Amino acid sequence: MATLRELAELVGGSVVGDSEAEVTRVAPLDSAGEGEITFVASAKYLPRLQHSRATAIIVTPGVEQPGRNLLVCRNPYLAFAKVLTLLQGGRPEPRGVLPGATVHPGAILAPEVTVHPGCVIGDRVQVGRGTILYPGVILYEEVVVGADCTLHAGVVVRERCRLGDRVIVQPSAVIGSDGFGYAPDGERYVKIPQVGIVIIEDDVEIGAATCIDRAALGVTRIGRGTKIDNLVQIGHNVEIGEDTILVSQVGIAGSSRIGRHCTFGGQSAVAGHLTVGDHVTIGGRGGVTNDVESNQILSGLPVMPHREWLKAAMTFSKLPQMRKEIQRLKKQLDEFAMKLKEM
Amino acid sequence: MATLRELAELVGGSVVGDSEAEVTRVAPLDSAGEGEITFVASAKYLPRLQHSRATAIIVTPGVEQPGRNLLVCRNPYLAFAKVLTLLQGGRPEPRGVLPGATVHPGAILAPEVTVHPGCVIGDRVQVGRGTILYPGVILYEEVVVGADCTLHAGVVVRERCRLGDRVIVQPSAVIGSDGFGYAPDGERYVKIPQVGIVIIEDDVEIGAATCIDRAALGVTRIGRGTKIDNLVQIGHNVEIGEDTILVSQVGIAGSSRIGRHCTFGGQSAVAGHLTVGDHVTIGGRGGVTNDVESNQILSGLPVMPHREWLKAAMTFSKLPQMRKEIQRLKKQLDEFAMKLKEM
Amino acid sequence: MATLRELAELVGGSVVGDSEAEVTRVAPLDSAGEGEITFVASAKYLPRLQHSRATAIIVTPGVEQPGRNLLVCRNPYLAFAKVLTLLQGGRPEPRGVLPGATVHPGAILAPEVTVHPGCVIGDRVQVGRGTILYPGVILYEEVVVGADCTLHAGVVVRERCRLGDRVIVQPSAVIGSDGFGYAPDGERYVKIPQVGIVIIEDDVEIGAATCIDRAALGVTRIGRGTKIDNLVQIGHNVEIGEDTILVSQVGIAGSSRIGRHCTFGGQSAVAGHLTVGDHVTIGGRGGVTNDVESNQILSGLPVMPHREWLKAAMTFSKLPQMRKEIQRLKKQLDEFAMKLKEM
Repeated sequence: MATLRELAELVGGSVVGDSEAEVTRVAPLDSAGEGEITFVASAKYLPRLQHSRATAIIVTPGVEQPGRNLLVCRNPYLAFAKVLTLLQGGRPEPRGVLPGATVHPGAILAPEVTVHPGCVIGDRVQVGRGTILYPGVILYEEVVVGADCTLHAGVVVRERCRLGDRVIVQPSAVIGSDGFGYAPDGERYVKIPQVGIVIIEDDVEIGAATCIDRAALGVTRIGRGTKIDNLVQIGHNVEIGEDTILVSQVGIAGSSRIGRHCTFGGQSAVAGHLTVGDHVTIGGRGGVTNDVESNQILSGLPVMPHREWLKAAMTFSKLPQMRKEIQRLKKQLDEFAMKLKEM
Repeated sequence: MATLRELAELVGGSVVGDSEAEVTRVAPLDSAGEGEITFVASAKYLPRLQHSRATAIIVTPGVEQPGRNLLVCRNPYLAFAKVLTLLQGGRPEPRGVLPGATVHPGAILAPEVTVHPGCVIGDRVQVGRGTILYPGVILYEEVVVGADCTLHAGVVVRERCRLGDRVIVQPSAVIGSDGFGYAPDGERYVKIPQVGIVIIEDDVEIGAATCIDRAALGVTRIGRGTKIDNLVQIGHNVEIGEDTILVSQVGIAGSSRIGRHCTFGGQSAVAGHLTVGDHVTIGGRGGVTNDVESNQILSGLPVMPHREWLKAAMTFSKLPQMRKEIQRLKKQLDEFAMKLKEM
Repeated sequence: MATLRELAELVGGSVVGDSEAEVTRVAPLDSAGEGEITFVASAKYLPRLQHSRATAIIVTPGVEQPGRNLLVCRNPYLAFAKVLTLLQGGRPEPRGVLPGATVHPGAILAPEVTVHPGCVIGDRVQVGRGTILYPGVILYEEVVVGADCTLHAGVVVRERCRLGDRVIVQPSAVIGSDGFGYAPDGERYVKIPQVGIVIIEDDVEIGAATCIDRAALGVTRIGRGTKIDNLVQIGHNVEIGEDTILVSQVGIAGSSRIGRHCTFGGQSAVAGHLTVGDHVTIGGRGGVTNDVESNQILSGLPVMPHREWLKAAMTFSKLPQMRKEIQRLKKQLDEFAMKLKEM
C-alpha cells in the first residue's frame, strides 16, 4: 500500500487530486477499480480513461481529467514499472537451504540465500548474498553466482561459468552448454572439447529455455543490463555488449560480437564470426550475414536498410506479374523492331 | 486385446471378414503381422495392402480385399487413433506421492494422483484427481492443475498459473515464465514485474521445451483443445482460441490474439498486438505483421494469400535474369529512340 | 602435461624445434603463454603468430618460424582437437550412485557409472559402463543408455528410447517426447498415442534444449556420429543418416528422411514426409519443401541452388526500382507506338 504522494516521490512526478489517496495494486486500464492504480502511456488510450474506475491514473503532463487522481510524470511506462515493483513487495524472505536440496560441502553460500528442494550445488560453487535458487536449479562445480540473483526452476549452469549481481534467469535456461565445435577427420567429426566459460554480467535477464554456449577457449560474454528473451541461442565465444535486447528465438552464431544498446527482433539471426556495431536494430527474422556498422535499422535476409526491405517485401507479391510484363515488353519491342526494319 | 466386433463398435464402423478375430497391437502397414491391426488412410497406400500380414486392416468404405479382415469406417485415421488409444491400455495406476518428491504441507492433492520422485510442489497448490506428475515437475505456489492431467518430466509451472482438465504437457515445457517487458530509462532497461498469470484450458497439449509467458497484468490464455508443438514461444498476454494448432518453433509475440481453429505452420510467427481471426492457416515460416481476417490461407513475410506467395516464391530465382532483361529492354528502347529521332 | 614429441605421435605430425618442450594447456593464439600450445589453422592468422608467446604452435607443413617450437601436421584443427582432448584429462573418475539420486530397484546399472543427485531412473532401465548422468537426469522406464555416455543436467529420456555408446547430451535436451499427431474429429482433435521410440546411435551429440520426438509407431532414428546443436526440433518418425550436422534451431518435420554427411545451417527446416539425399548442404534458414537429391548446396525458401539464391537475394532490394522501370518502359513503348502510328 502506498499513497499517491509516496508514489510521486518514487517516480519523480506530481499529484493532481488527492495526494493521500491510497493504492494497493496496479491493474489494466479497463479493469482497474477501487484501491488500484493504472496508467496511460499512449494518447490513443486516453478516451478509455474516462470510463476507468481506478483510484488513480499515471499520465503524462498536459492530460486533464477533472475530479480524477492523477500521478503526472514524463515517462508513465517507466513510472508504471517502478510503482508495480514497489507495490508487489520486495523479494521473498530468505529461507536458507531447504530440505531436499543437495549442497556440496565445498560450496560457499553467502548469508540470506534461499536454496529450494531439488537444487544440486557442486563443489567450490559460490552463491552471493540474497540470491534465490528455485527448485531444481543445478550448479556444476566452481560456478559463481553473484548477489540478489534469481534463478528459476530447472536452470542449469555448467562448470566454472560466472553470473554477476541481480541476474534473473527464467526456468530451464541453460548456461555453459558445450559450443558446437567439431574437426572433420575424413567423413567423421571429432569433438573439440569446449573448455572456456560463460560470463553473465550484472543486471542481465535470460529467458526460459534459452541456451548460452560456453567458449571453446576463452569466454562467451553477455554484457551488463542486456535482456534476452525465451528460446534464444547464443553460440560459443559470442560477445554481446551492454543494454542490448534479444527477442525470442533469436540465434547468434559462434564468435560473433554484438555491440551495446542493439535490438534484435524475434527469430532474427547473426551468422558466425561477424561484428555488429552499437545501436543497431535488426527487424524480426532479419538475417545478418556480414559485418554491420553502428546506428542502423536493418531487415531482411541478408539484411538491408529497413525501409528498403519494407518496400521490396511489399513488391514481392508482384513478381509473377512483373515477369509477365517483361515478356510482353520484349514481344512488343520485337514487333517494333520488325516494323522499323520494314520502314 | 480386442475383437474386431468390439473395435467396430468403438469407432462406429463395420467388419468385413471374421468379426471375432482378435488384435493386440497397432502396427505400421509394412511391418504389421499376426495379432496386429494396421490402417490405410490414403488411397496411394492401397497397393501395399495386399502384401501386409496384418490380422486386420482399417479402411474406408469401398475398399475390397477378399479373404482379409477389414474394419470399414469413414475416417480410418480417427479410427486408428481410437483403436490405438484402446489397445495401449489406460493410464497407469495411481501411485500417490512417491519417495523423493517434496510436497508442501499446504498443497492440496486430490485422490488418485501420482507424484514421482524429484517433483517439488509448493504451498497452496491444488492438483486434481488422477493427474500424473512425472519426475522433476516443479509447481510454484498456488498453481492449480485440473483432473487427469499428465505433466511430463521437468515441466515447470510458475506461481498462480492454472491448468484445466486432461491437459498434457511434454517434458521441460515452461508455463508462466516472466513476459519480456522493460521500460527504457535512458539507455538502460527497467524490468516491469510480470504479475499476471497463464490459464491453460481443458484438453490442451503443450510440446517439449515450449514456453508460455505469464501476463504482465491479467492473463495469457490458451483455449480449450488447442495443441502446441515443441519449442514454441507464446508471449505475455497472448490469447489463443479453441482447437488451434501451433506447429513446432512458432513464435507469437506479446498481446496478440489468435482465433479458434487456426493452424500455424512450423517456424511461423505473429508480431505483437495483432488480431488473427478464426480458421486461419499460416504456412510454414509465414510472418504475420498485420491483423488477419478469418478464413484465409496465408504465407510469406509479410503474409499474403498462399497461392500468390507460391507463385512469387517460384519466380524469386528469376530475379537476376529479370533485372538483366530490363536493362536490355532499356538499352533497346534507347536505340529505338535514337533511330526514331534520326528518321 | 605432454612433450611435443608425445603430441606429434598423437596427431601423426613432426616437431620443429625442441621436441622435449612441455605444454600443459591449449590457449588462443593471442593469449597463449609459457607452457601453452596454440594453433594456426588458417593462413590469414600467420602474421599474428610472430607475437605469440606460446611455448609451441601447431601449424601446417611449409610454415617457417625460426626459433619457434612447431608441431607440424596436415590438419592443425584436428590436431588441436586431439591435443585439447589429451591435455584436458580423461573423464572424471566414476562415483557410483550418489545420495539424492532415485534408482528403481529394477534398473540395471553397469559398473563404473556415475549417477548424480536429483537423477531419477525408472524400472528396467539399463545404463552402460562408464556412463555419467549429471544432476537431474530423468530416465523413464525401459530406457537403454550405452557405455561411456554423458547425459548433462536436466536431460529427459522417455520410456523405451535407446541411446548407443559415447552419446553426449547437453543440458535439458528431451528425447522421446510425444510426436505431434492428432486426428481431426469435426472441429476437435483426437490425440494419436505415440507408441514408437527414439533410437540414438553411437557417437551422436545432442544440443541443449533440443527435442527429438518418439515415433507414432516404429522408430525416430539419429544415425551414428551425427551432431545436433541446441534448440533443434526433430519430428516423429524422422530418420537422419550418419555424420550429419544440424546447426542450432533447425526443424525437421515428421517422417522426413535425411541422408548421411549432410549439413543444415541454423534455423533451416525440412517439411514433413520428404527425402533429402546424402552430402546435401542447406544454407542458414533454407526451407526444404520437396525431395532433394544428393550432393547439392541449396538455400532459400523454397530451396534452390545456393549460388542462384545468393544472386536472387542480392537483387531483392532492387525490386521496387525494377517495378518502376517496367512502368517507365511500358509508358515509353506506348509513346513509341503512338509515334509509329503517326508516321
